Amino acid sequence: MRIIGIDPGYAIVGFGVIEYERRRFDVIDYGAITTDADTDFNTRLLEIYGDVCSIFDRYKPESMAIERLYFTTNQKTAIAVAEARGIVLLAARQRNIDIFEYTPLQVKNSITGYGKAVKKQVQELTKNILKLPEIPKPDDTADALAIAVCHAHSFNSQLSRLG
Amino acid sequence: MRIIGIDPGYAIVGFGVIEYERRRFDVIDYGAITTDADTDFNTRLLEIYGDVCSIFDRYKPESMAIERLYFTTNQKTAIAVAEARGIVLLAARQRNIDIFEYTPLQVKNSITGYGKAVKKQVQELTKNILKLPEIPKPDDTADALAIAVCHAHSFNSQLSRLG
Repeated sequence: MRIIGIDPGYAIVGFGVIEYERRRFDVIDYGAITTDADTDFNTRLLEIYGDVCSIFDRYKPESMAIERLYFTTNQKTAIAVAEARGIVLLAARQRNIDIFEYTPLQVKNSITGYGKAVKKQVQELTKNILKLPEIPKPDDTADALAIAVCHAHSFNSQLSRLG
Repeated sequence: MRIIGIDPGYAIVGFGVIEYERRRFDVIDYGAITTDADTDFNTRLLEIYGDVCSIFDRYKPESMAIERLYFTTNQKTAIAVAEARGIVLLAARQRNIDIFEYTPLQVKNSITGYGKAVKKQVQELTKNILKLPEIPKPDDTADALAIAVCHAHSFNSQLSRLG
């Protein structure tokens, strides 16, 4: 099963593509789409859409795991992140990619078994699970891989329950 | 100048298309895109994208005036509205439609000259300005026409200042 994990944003969209078969992980690719702060916001949305579509078309994931949004203190940023996230959802839905959402707490629990784990612990364990030489940069990329692993675990435990 | 006003949402997207030349308004069309609460959210986004693209392609507006979002008490709704709004921005940007954003306060001021006007007053005056037989339903459609008129006024006052 090919899974893409997405950490949504408008300045940086982290992505991580993994293959998960028989409880084994293969890392296909990971990285970040970035847009320039000097570019007008609507053009940034257009760039994100183009880049996300290209990534989906290149790697053809069956499932997308994406972080669920919560509001923080900065509402203006939160609105802009949600607008960019809507575009990622659209691009995935246009390709019939199955969409799954996880909260940061679910990701932490899934990777570390501990909801109060710090970000660094989650990233370190994700690196180990995926046998990566180091924690990918930026954080958005590491977070995208973590959410992809979280979805694989979740899918796996559903299979266990079913059979 | 052909202007489309948009009141963004995920259940209802109001739209109003007007032509504004030499301080004269012509109403081209208005209505609402609606999506069903029983349909999954990502499919609703896909439907909104398809319908908004069709409306843009049918009426070929030069400018889009769209309401700026603020956070209300219901954060979950606000995120979903922002996700849908991002898709409208994308569809407009893909067609090189100029995008203008106005706050509800700006719209009230522009239509009634009074920032504390109630919604009903704004709708009544918009109806008179556009010589409509009655206030369009639902509210989202009436609001979309009001924001289109607001943009025409704003554009007009810019021309006055320049000339």
